[in-house]
Amino acid sequence: MLYLIGLGLGDAEDITVKGLEIVKKCNRVYLESYTSILAVEKERLEQFYGRPLITADRQVVEQEAEQILKDANDIDIAFLVVGDPFGATTHSDLVLRAVKMGIPYRIVHNASILSAVGCCGLQLYNFGEVASIVFWTRTWKPESFFDRVKTNRQNGLHTLCLLDLQIRERSLENLIKGRKIYEPPRFMTVNQAAQQLLEIVQNQRARGEEPAITEETICVGLARVGSEEQKIAAGTLKQMCTVDLGGPLHSLIITGNLHPLEVEMLKLFPMPEDD
Amino acid sequence: MLYLIGLGLGDAEDITVKGLEIVKKCNRVYLESYTSILAVEKERLEQFYGRPLITADRQVVEQEAEQILKDANDIDIAFLVVGDPFGATTHSDLVLRAVKMGIPYRIVHNASILSAVGCCGLQLYNFGEVASIVFWTRTWKPESFFDRVKTNRQNGLHTLCLLDLQIRERSLENLIKGRKIYEPPRFMTVNQAAQQLLEIVQNQRARGEEPAITEETICVGLARVGSEEQKIAAGTLKQMCTVDLGGPLHSLIITGNLHPLEVEMLKLFPMPEDD
Repeated sequence: MLYLIGLGLGDAEDITVKGLEIVKKCNRVYLESYTSILAVEKERLEQFYGRPLITADRQVVEQEAEQILKDANDIDIAFLVVGDPFGATTHSDLVLRAVKMGIPYRIVHNASILSAVGCCGLQLYNFGEVASIVFWTRTWKPESFFDRVKTNRQNGLHTLCLLDLQIRERSLENLIKGRKIYEPPRFMTVNQAAQQLLEIVQNQRARGEEPAITEETICVGLARVGSEEQKIAAGTLKQMCTVDLGGPLHSLIITGNLHPLEVEMLKLFPMPEDD
Repeated sequence: MLYLIGLGLGDAEDITVKGLEIVKKCNRVYLESYTSILAVEKERLEQFYGRPLITADRQVVEQEAEQILKDANDIDIAFLVVGDPFGATTHSDLVLRAVKMGIPYRIVHNASILSAVGCCGLQLYNFGEVASIVFWTRTWKPESFFDRVKTNRQNGLHTLCLLDLQIRERSLENLIKGRKIYEPPRFMTVNQAAQQLLEIVQNQRARGEEPAITEETICVGLARVGSEEQKIAAGTLKQMCTVDLGGPLHSLIITGNLHPLEVEMLKLFPMPEDD
């Protein structure tokens, strides 16, 4: 049996009771490690589960899936995913591969950032399509995701922006030379996302377009949702460029029309005072 | 301290380890019982938690919130919610009230139907705004939610339709007479939702409008997501009018543009054969 088990978002203890029982009885336990991270170290998880974890990075999941599924017709394999197994990313490939090999599978759901952002008080009913903001480089500055923000705003809807993270990426040079040397992990902060958004707004103005948001649009920055060190701050897009929300992971919401109850909830999360 | 704890969607064991530890130490434990239900009985939960549960229906939550929050400055109160505490419904009111009373609060997230529907293989990135389908009566047949389906389809997006449930509702007569006599709980099935949708399509055609979906639009019916008895079936809207997915709770997805990987995933969930 293949079990895809969501770990939730914050701490080791965010696994469900059902999930923990399965992990404890599985013969091999993989930890998917390239689409997100928990706020805790792998060692802490191993200690909590009482089981060794096999790290499954992008290469393992995409190119060595047979390895993960080996003998799963006879033994139990767990594949642990931060959030929900079908949340911010998808592991359809692994499921389809298992089904083709005649291996039964089961999903153990958990909290995903897509619904946990409701903790800031914005109603999940009022969110439109999710957007992803990727790291810009000097030569590659895609603006295409901004169309989603625009469509959502036109319909009065909030936009959850998932921010880029690069875990075990290789530099172009190392990739070309086939060297397995990995860059240090990078996580986009709310500041970086807001700065890129502002640049798009300015570019659109320069092109004579009417941008869907301005420096004054109300946004919500969220960091480490679900963990003890969670931080939330509501303020203008301009303020988001400099607010300090600490370590990863960060998410950013661009609001649409705000209901009075939502406004009242956002007041619970003022911008931190400057020191 | 007030703890809002998500229970997830399926079984008693879907509570997180963190959530269970908190429930075990709280002085009073409320079970919110009017916006959703778990697949298990209250007694099963009480047995599993080793704690008595106080049922909190709509009246208790909306009119007797002081009762729930009583002494929460000195003792620990847990408020259990099916799914995520800020998922398909919102408990902002309770949080705002607690904050005004100077009571600290904490959220323990869990799986919500909003992200768990990813288990059918449709990518959560490709969903637009959520829609809610309410029970029609002989005289009240609202079609307004259909605009959301239309907007989502125009943008190529899937629509998750949350289906009405009426728990501890009073008949108009009993309401007027002030009698606390409650109707048996009602849960909208995928069949009922599909039939109402088809009626809207026909109404729109009769008015000379071009409906955003037809009898042949691919939909996904989901029942008891996350539980051992989960059922998923993909097929046309017409097929959804008669498919048998068993007991509550049901959800219905109206697809937008389908990615080849999504099509392949949906093939894992064929319509059940007629007997």
